[in-house]
Amino acid sequence: VLQVKLKSIMCVCVCVCVCVTDRTLVQIQDLTPAKADQLVWLRARVHTSRAKGKQCFLVLRQQQFNVQALVAVGDRASKQMVKFAANITKESIVDVEASVRKVELKIESCSQQDVELHIERIFVISQAEPRLPLQLEDAVRPDGEGEEEGRATVNQDTKLDNRVIDLRTTTSQAIFRLQSGVCQLFRDTLTNKGFVEIQTPKIISAASEGGANVFTVSYFKTSAYLAQSPQLYKQMCICADFDKVFCVGPVFRAEDSNTHRHLTEFVGLDIEMAFNYHYHEVIESITDTMVQIFKGLRDNFQTEIQMVNKQYPSEPFKFLEPTLRLEYTEALAMLHEAGVEMGDEEDLSTPNEKLLGRLVKEKYDTDFYVLDKYPLAVRPFYTMPDPNNPKYSNSYDMFMRGEEILSGAQRVHDAQLLTERATHHQIDLEKIKAYIDSFRYGAPPHGGGGIGLERVCMLYLGLHNVRQTSMFPRDPKRLTP
Amino acid sequence: VLQVKLKSIMCVCVCVCVCVTDRTLVQIQDLTPAKADQLVWLRARVHTSRAKGKQCFLVLRQQQFNVQALVAVGDRASKQMVKFAANITKESIVDVEASVRKVELKIESCSQQDVELHIERIFVISQAEPRLPLQLEDAVRPDGEGEEEGRATVNQDTKLDNRVIDLRTTTSQAIFRLQSGVCQLFRDTLTNKGFVEIQTPKIISAASEGGANVFTVSYFKTSAYLAQSPQLYKQMCICADFDKVFCVGPVFRAEDSNTHRHLTEFVGLDIEMAFNYHYHEVIESITDTMVQIFKGLRDNFQTEIQMVNKQYPSEPFKFLEPTLRLEYTEALAMLHEAGVEMGDEEDLSTPNEKLLGRLVKEKYDTDFYVLDKYPLAVRPFYTMPDPNNPKYSNSYDMFMRGEEILSGAQRVHDAQLLTERATHHQIDLEKIKAYIDSFRYGAPPHGGGGIGLERVCMLYLGLHNVRQTSMFPRDPKRLTP
Repeated sequence: VLQVKLKSIMCVCVCVCVCVTDRTLVQIQDLTPAKADQLVWLRARVHTSRAKGKQCFLVLRQQQFNVQALVAVGDRASKQMVKFAANITKESIVDVEASVRKVELKIESCSQQDVELHIERIFVISQAEPRLPLQLEDAVRPDGEGEEEGRATVNQDTKLDNRVIDLRTTTSQAIFRLQSGVCQLFRDTLTNKGFVEIQTPKIISAASEGGANVFTVSYFKTSAYLAQSPQLYKQMCICADFDKVFCVGPVFRAEDSNTHRHLTEFVGLDIEMAFNYHYHEVIESITDTMVQIFKGLRDNFQTEIQMVNKQYPSEPFKFLEPTLRLEYTEALAMLHEAGVEMGDEEDLSTPNEKLLGRLVKEKYDTDFYVLDKYPLAVRPFYTMPDPNNPKYSNSYDMFMRGEEILSGAQRVHDAQLLTERATHHQIDLEKIKAYIDSFRYGAPPHGGGGIGLERVCMLYLGLHNVRQTSMFPRDPKRLTP
Repeated sequence: VLQVKLKSIMCVCVCVCVCVTDRTLVQIQDLTPAKADQLVWLRARVHTSRAKGKQCFLVLRQQQFNVQALVAVGDRASKQMVKFAANITKESIVDVEASVRKVELKIESCSQQDVELHIERIFVISQAEPRLPLQLEDAVRPDGEGEEEGRATVNQDTKLDNRVIDLRTTTSQAIFRLQSGVCQLFRDTLTNKGFVEIQTPKIISAASEGGANVFTVSYFKTSAYLAQSPQLYKQMCICADFDKVFCVGPVFRAEDSNTHRHLTEFVGLDIEMAFNYHYHEVIESITDTMVQIFKGLRDNFQTEIQMVNKQYPSEPFKFLEPTLRLEYTEALAMLHEAGVEMGDEEDLSTPNEKLLGRLVKEKYDTDFYVLDKYPLAVRPFYTMPDPNNPKYSNSYDMFMRGEEILSGAQRVHDAQLLTERATHHQIDLEKIKAYIDSFRYGAPPHGGGGIGLERVCMLYLGLHNVRQTSMFPRDPKRLTP
């Protein structure tokens, strides 16, 4: 039975594979007038299909590229073949042999506007079910557009529930190709600066950063936790003489926050480095890395940026060189001037962060800046206090379009001071023993920070929900697909 | 109190940072006769220290580089200073100002053999505790060497318990710099081939690969699991038109295996791609990627390879171009000939894998090969059966020095066949609904595989325990540091 089933399912694949291994498939993006009158083979999805008398018009798609194709009754195609083509469901994958023809009138609805295909043979490689849970053209429609004609848009949960189809849209393809670029730019920049990539464990024995917001894992006969950040391990690597390290990997937050910018699992781009004389050496390394990412995206991902902008219009991302660095007290002064009432040692609320972002944009014309010297009271126990004013600390956040994308600091590298700071924060010393012990055998002054990949992509592109830049987002209410 | 404490702990840092931001620190590896008679500043660890009358000899270290340094009573140093230097504990971090001097007789024990430093000033930046839990020179001593003189080696648990110190050894520095290189070579090769990097979730709602060996996570009011591989998500990306994807990230196995090659958390280098006509296109992409990694390591990491070989001697890693591909039945014939008794549809045991590795090495002179066409019965439900003989499957493993480093296959891309195969394997269909549904809307033929990063590094270097190539290994008995 399996044998028969297999033969039927794989018939095209097998026959194609056995018979025609020397066949060359062309890419849709390469279909230009230069190929006019050539006979080509290609594999593509049926994007749309419309039968009209003795003809069937198809739009064939590969990722963001598409081309018009035609099956017409005549020398090369029978009436049956036109009917067969008309019945192929949308999103099916087909192999076609076709002649490339120049067209007089540009085909505005396709990426390949100067040619169309006259199909001579067509095989279905994989048949899609007839009812799609969402339509691709609805999923890329800008909010509000076509409302009067009663055209639908697709809400976010439907998109995420059917992510495999939603990811096929030009918008999603562009977002995640750009995201891949962010990771590459991040790593390449740091590798060029002499950083070493490290891999840190995600299953940890103790909830080292205080114990709140941590997921518990059953681990054989005991239990363990999921790391909220690789920070403690990055620091151990610095104490182990790796000097400058980075890592890219998942971080986990068991926080019941249902907002546009919180995920329970996201990708951390983490940096840690020893410095010589001042923690501003660390800030400079990080801001320079961010600037290299912004430049790389601007210079190499314009197609993707434009594609996302079609559905989600936004202003181009602005940044300065060198990066603007403000001190917390300066920021407070700007907020006070704008009428905000808040105390000197109070943390910034999300609305105040956004307001500050707008004030900074007006005054300095930048979407990216560093806020330095946070009050010590609002930072974790391992943050180095400011030696000149212990009300403040050698710590910083970085912002894109008024939202936080990085949190970092000089770390306490002295075991005794670290013990005191942990005690002050009422952290169980027994649980962070291994961490504190790392600093007992010589530790250089060091600092670093952690960047949220999804936030960087969301804010660079001017999107409004971090779920759009996470392929398979996880939040308190979503664990699938 | 904090203020006073801080001032005392940070005194060097602060004073150095405030007073001398224009000071340039030199790297030990740059200390050559070209710098003779220059006065330089550097920051380094005290590797060893030996006082002798009016002199104190130090060896100063930066990662794998070290240099001899001398404090001697005279014009530039007092008796007190010699005493101070002699009392600096091993592994402390110091800033020294010193004059570079050419030496007549090569200093065999240091990486910088032609110069020594005459110290004029020395500051302790970070003081190590006097008793180290292990000695670096013991941790890099080859097994058996110096046994007669009663010299110690350090057992693996002691090394791992004190990983921050163990990672400072030349062997560990070399291993993890090479590991960083493997990741970079893997990604660069695939990016050049048009692959897109993806990020896949580690917290998943269902134990999709059968349910065994999976860690459970408490997830708010419900429970979830840690992904055993990104495979299902890689496949969804293929169904979502990303065409060729890779990812690098942690994978989790709740397997109570206490062997030299099993970890409960390791780093997966994963590949998945659509192919045109034959799954051997996938095998070729993967083997070519491995060959690029081997070449990159051979050409760019000789220093690291030599350094590891000093402690753990091994033969250079051999590979062929194109990569050797054997079919399962051929391998069985070789094993039968060597006297092994096993059935046609039986899986390879670890000893038989190793024996086969030796037979292949003898016959073909390669440490890397592909074993193709495994019996269907021993592979997961989503493996594509061989259409010509359903006793076998379109699946493969890859081996380095006789040990498996990759498992892969053509995947079933038809929802109906997948349902049947899952039913045959008695997998709860409800739990893998989202996975099966991914194939309902058109899916191209595709395949891929997952590589264990730590195993690749271990076997390339000819090491014998995967814990040596995991910075902070996790196994059923180890969760710290």
